Formats: sequence, C-alpha cells, structure tokens
Amino acid sequence: GVQFDAREHQHLRYNPLRDSWVLVSAHRMKRPWAGQVEKPPEEHIPRYDRRNPLCPGNTRANGEENPDYESTFVFENDFPALQPDAPDPGSDQHPLFQSKAARGICKVMCFHPWSDVTLPLMKKEELVRVIDKWADLVEELGATYPWVQIFENKGAMMGCSNPHPHCQVWASNFLPNEPALSDRCQRVYYEKHGEPLLLEYARQEAEKKERVVVESSDWLAVVPYWATWPYQTLLLPRRHVLRINDLTTEEREGLADIMKRLLTKYDNLFEVSFPYSMGWHGAPTGPHLKENNSYWHLHAHYYPPLLRSATVKKFMVGYEMLAQEQRDLTPEQLRQGEKCTGKQESKLRID
Amino acid sequence: GVQFDAREHQHLRYNPLRDSWVLVSAHRMKRPWAGQVEKPPEEHIPRYDRRNPLCPGNTRANGEENPDYESTFVFENDFPALQPDAPDPGSDQHPLFQSKAARGICKVMCFHPWSDVTLPLMKKEELVRVIDKWADLVEELGATYPWVQIFENKGAMMGCSNPHPHCQVWASNFLPNEPALSDRCQRVYYEKHGEPLLLEYARQEAEKKERVVVESSDWLAVVPYWATWPYQTLLLPRRHVLRINDLTTEEREGLADIMKRLLTKYDNLFEVSFPYSMGWHGAPTGPHLKENNSYWHLHAHYYPPLLRSATVKKFMVGYEMLAQEQRDLTPEQLRQGEKCTGKQESKLRID
Ligand SMILES: O=P(O)(O)O[C@H]1O[C@H](CO)[C@@H](O)[C@H](O)[C@H]1O
Ligand SMILES: O=P(O)(O)O[C@H]1O[C@H](CO)[C@@H](O)[C@H](O)[C@H]1O
Repeated sequence: GVQFDAREHQHLRYNPLRDSWVLVSAHRMKRPWAGQVEKPPEEHIPRYDRRNPLCPGNTRANGEENPDYESTFVFENDFPALQPDAPDPGSDQHPLFQSKAARGICKVMCFHPWSDVTLPLMKKEELVRVIDKWADLVEELGATYPWVQIFENKGAMMGCSNPHPHCQVWASNFLPNEPALSDRCQRVYYEKHGEPLLLEYARQEAEKKERVVVESSDWLAVVPYWATWPYQTLLLPRRHVLRINDLTTEEREGLADIMKRLLTKYDNLFEVSFPYSMGWHGAPTGPHLKENNSYWHLHAHYYPPLLRSATVKKFMVGYEMLAQEQRDLTPEQLRQGEKCTGKQESKLRID
Repeated sequence: GVQFDAREHQHLRYNPLRDSWVLVSAHRMKRPWAGQVEKPPEEHIPRYDRRNPLCPGNTRANGEENPDYESTFVFENDFPALQPDAPDPGSDQHPLFQSKAARGICKVMCFHPWSDVTLPLMKKEELVRVIDKWADLVEELGATYPWVQIFENKGAMMGCSNPHPHCQVWASNFLPNEPALSDRCQRVYYEKHGEPLLLEYARQEAEKKERVVVESSDWLAVVPYWATWPYQTLLLPRRHVLRINDLTTEEREGLADIMKRLLTKYDNLFEVSFPYSMGWHGAPTGPHLKENNSYWHLHAHYYPPLLRSATVKKFMVGYEMLAQEQRDLTPEQLRQGEKCTGKQESKLRID
C-alpha cells in the first residue's frame, strides 16, 4: 500500500486536554479560495485619541475619568457579562430546563498608555508589568472566585472593538465548561500515569522539536500535536507551575521574553498585526485552593483565525460546528514554514 | 431581595445534548457596538453565470462537465477533506500523540439549477426534492459509513464561497465529536428517564409555547432553552423518527413547508438573506444500524451568526473559546421580537 504522509493523507489526532479529535486534511490547502476576504487591520492608529475611552485621562461610558496612567490600568467593565449580585433563577425541576445562578466580576486591563503599541512592540520591562498585573488579579479575584479567566481578543476580526492594547479578566462563581473539561482530563491522566499531562507533554515536545516555535531555558511555545486553528500555539513553563501567580521573578522575565518572540513571529508570518484570542489556564482557585491540584500545569492558549494570508481566515462552520473540527494544514507546517522563521524583529516595530 | 428576571440577570442554562452550560447575560445587548461590521450579502446574483462551477452545463475544476440538471444535482467534492482510501497513520503508542485513520467521502449537492434562489425562495415541490435527495444520500452512504453529515454553510460570512444554493454531505468511517457527545447524552437520558430526550423536549416546548418559532401538525422549530447563537433554532418532528430517510411522504411535505416558514422568518428578521450553518443529526448508521438506537430523535440545528443587524454578528471569541459560551439576549427574545412575527412572505421573494 501507499506510505502514510501527514501532509497528503487525512487522519484524526487526539486532543488529550479536551478528550476529542481533530480531522487533519492537509491536502485541502490546495483548493482555490474564492470566498470571503477580511479587511486587513487598520494601520494608522493614533497614539492618543480623545474619543477613545481606554486612553489615559479620558472619560468612560459611565462618566468615570481614567487616571493619567503610565503602565497598566485596570477598571471594571462598563457592560459586564457577570455581576457580583445577580439573583438566583430558582429552578424548574425538569431535567431539560435547568438553570443556575451565575455571579462574578468583569475587569478590563489596558496594557500600556499608548494606543499604537501591541504586546510584541512593547519593551520587555513593560511586558513584565503586564504579567505582574495578571498575577495580582489571579491572586486577588482567585481568593474567592473558583475561576479567573484572563483573555485577550486581538484585532477586529476577533470581535475586539477597541484598538487600544488591552485584555479582559472575567471571574466567576462557577468553573466554566472549558476549564472543567481540562481539569477532568488532566486529573484522569495524572491518576493513570502518575505525572502531570502537560509537564510530560512539554518534555516530549522539547525532545522531538517538530512543533516547537520558540523556546528558552524556562518556557516553551509549541503548535500542539492536536491544534485545531491553523497557527494555534500552547505556551507553557518547563518547571511545574500551577498558577500564574506562582511564577518566580525570573520566570516572569522569561515569559516577557518568549511572549515577545512568539508574537513577533506571528506578526511576521503574514506581515500584519496578527489577530488572535488568547487566554491563561491554571489550576482553579477560590474553594479549590484547599484541594490538591498538582495534576494541573499553567499554560496559555493562542487561537489565531488566519489561514492563508492576512485577509483569509479559517472558517469553523458547518462540519466543524455540527460534526468535528477540521484543519487544512498539519500542525508541523507552521514550524516548517520558511516565512515564519529567521526574522527576530517584528517588521511592525515602531519604537 | 430582587426578583429574578432572565432579561436583566445573568444566569447559566444547561444544554442536555452537549452536557455543558451557556452563560446568558441578556443585559449585554445594551452595550454600544463600535467593532467590526460585516459586508452585507451580495444582492444581485445572476441566475446563471458561465464561470460558476455549480451551474448546469458548466465545467468544474477537475474538467468534468455538469449535466443540464433541472432539480437537485449531486457530485463528489473536488477538494474533499475525506477520501475513501487514505492509508493508516500507524500509531505512536504515547497517549499524548495519538492518531487514527480517517476515511470517507465528501459530496456537494446543488439544491436548484438557478443561482439566484435560496431554500425559502424555492417552491414547496422543489424543497421536497431536496429532502428526498437528503434521505437517499443517508440511505446510500449510511449503508456502510457510521456517520453521514449533511450541512449547509449559507452566506460568505459562514465560509461559503459560492452563492449557488447548495449543501455538503461528508460521510466518515468514525463518529465525529459532536454526534458522539449527542449520542451519549441521549442514551444516558433514555436510560434514566425511559423516553427519548428530544421527544420529551418537543412535547414540553409545544405546551409551554415560549420558544416556538413555527409549528405544524408534524413539525416544531424552537429556539432551544440552551441556545448559544443568538437566533439558533432546533427543528424536529413530533413523531418519534430516528433518521431522515425514515420520514413519510407526508412528513417530508410538512418539512418542506416548515423549512420555508422558518427560513422566511429568518430572512425577514433583518431583511437580508440570512446567513447560517445548518445540519442534520439522526441516529448513527453503518455498523450502528444493527444496534438499538431508539434513544435517538432526528433533528436539524440552525446556527446563524448575526446578533444585532444584517452586518453585526456575535463573536464567539476569547471567553467563549477559553471558558464558556456566552449570549447577549435570552432565547425567549427571538420569539417575542416584534420584527420576526407576522410576516408570512419573504420580502426577498423573487418569483
Ligand atoms: O468546503 P468549503 O465550502 O469550501 O469550505 C467551508 O466549509 C468547510 C466545512 O464546514 C470548512 O472546513 C471550511 O473552512 C469552509 O470554508
Ligand atoms: O467584551 P467585548 O470585547 O466588548 O466583546 C467581545 O468579547 C466577548 C468575550 O469573549 C464576546 O462575548 C463578544 O462577543 C466580543 O465581541
């Protein structure tokens, strides 16, 4: 028979963090594209815009005035999906009409006072301050809330409605679906194999080197073997770390460094400020702080939507929504791509 | 304390088909939108375009010439994600690097010879022919393949790259993630409650009438209690039916009728040819034909992306990808919306 070649022959790969499969059909990249083309990101964003509610000194929707902040700046989302005091819906006892109370808090965090920078364009010290603030927020909100989700939607294509560099932090009184699934998968793996899933995974990838995008003595960024988005990456520390606030000073500096390198590579791939949604997953907090969570390992997921160019994205639609995620190139192809190796400095660098 | 009001107070709802939760934060519809605006669908599509590979008589990418078809027309996808004869990837025995063979077949089905019609604009008899062909394909491909996924990506926003009315049919030698999850949920429910989950659900909704969008003596379309997309609907027969090819002649006519009514409502909602991804889920086939699948109930899911208007969609991004799906209006609000009741004829009707 014919010899198997991942770039030519469709196959399934297992995602051990979600207990599900992805269909890899790399030969599909050959099909011509006549569908929707996205608007490329805006290129000329002013450093300060007096109408932008995220800029220092400006007034927000609720009438509050931002301080003249010089580093990061955190405030409560003016249109929060989670509020601390919503009443309980009560309960229709029917198993097909179940509801539950949801309480929490939504914060917005500006990364920098300037609107015309992104994380890869910031100085290393500035990135360290972002990381320190992430850690503080997990410490503070995680004291009571079981889950604190830090996430960044970057680019209009990813639903981001403000070009000023920022992320969001939503803390909830429940463990959301995705971390609940990841928690279960990591726990079951630990019970079976006696070591944390992601620690073993990082070790394997560091050895294989087939999917490593950037690495340093304490961090590793790989396109996971089970990636669903074309240029998805998983960023994780080499030392066993449960939560972002457990990172040492050196590890935070190392993280600033590797984030800058990873995001610069992304920007260089299609020579555009790369859109993505990213977020941190660490061991649950609040009541879970008292439990043994040593099966957990801190990591960030980067989910970028682009497939072919700065303006052609991957559509996760019909088959993906109704049956299973499908990808059009192998996870190894980002690593092998000529385009995204070599350049160490973002072409988009402005300072 | 304050009285709970679903339109004001965030809460969680349980999706019994996916064993997961959705965060309903209806008060978020009040937030202003300054983000990405989509291109509205093209309005002037020619009935026949000699460069369109889906039109009757035209030549496709592989050099084959389409017949002068007058009703539906089925052919094999020229760039299939699944092929019948891909070799086996073999297996790295490590639990974190698992792969499996994937084999199958991808077909494309044109609904009509004209490019300027959509399902709600077609005659009832024409819709019946589409339904009959769906049933034939499930019968034929389901004889051997365990899963036959019929799906339609409608509109450029949903990754559809050809305006000619068509759907796809992907049959696979594996049960994909979504039907596997749905299969498990329906089985567990049946074991516990002694009746099919969706049959009981249809009965409850027909009584409550809070979320029914359109109904007839043999069909029901509801915004499910656990809907994640703003205007998501679930279409299902009232009689217990396992697969689309089990529908009687009368039920197929009834389906043509209710599809026309449902899709006309969609088109009228924002006065635009409504984009969506839809697909059918029925009991598994192939080797599963010999099993007892009576816990299954045939249904179609409609997942439309729009939120506020013809050009502002819901972004399922950061929080949704990393934590949990979140919606900005209650599932009851479509039903209550003035805009989408009353009109029985699509404004877009052209014949
Ligand atoms: O097969 P098509 O229509 O070219 O492609 C479309 O539907 C597929 C199945 O949902 C997706 O994988 C593609 O991303 C999308 O563009
Ligand atoms: O909160 P934002 O940035 O206005 O909104 C964005 O992120 C949210 C969280 O992922 C999503 O629910 C919204 O659909 C998206 O537009």
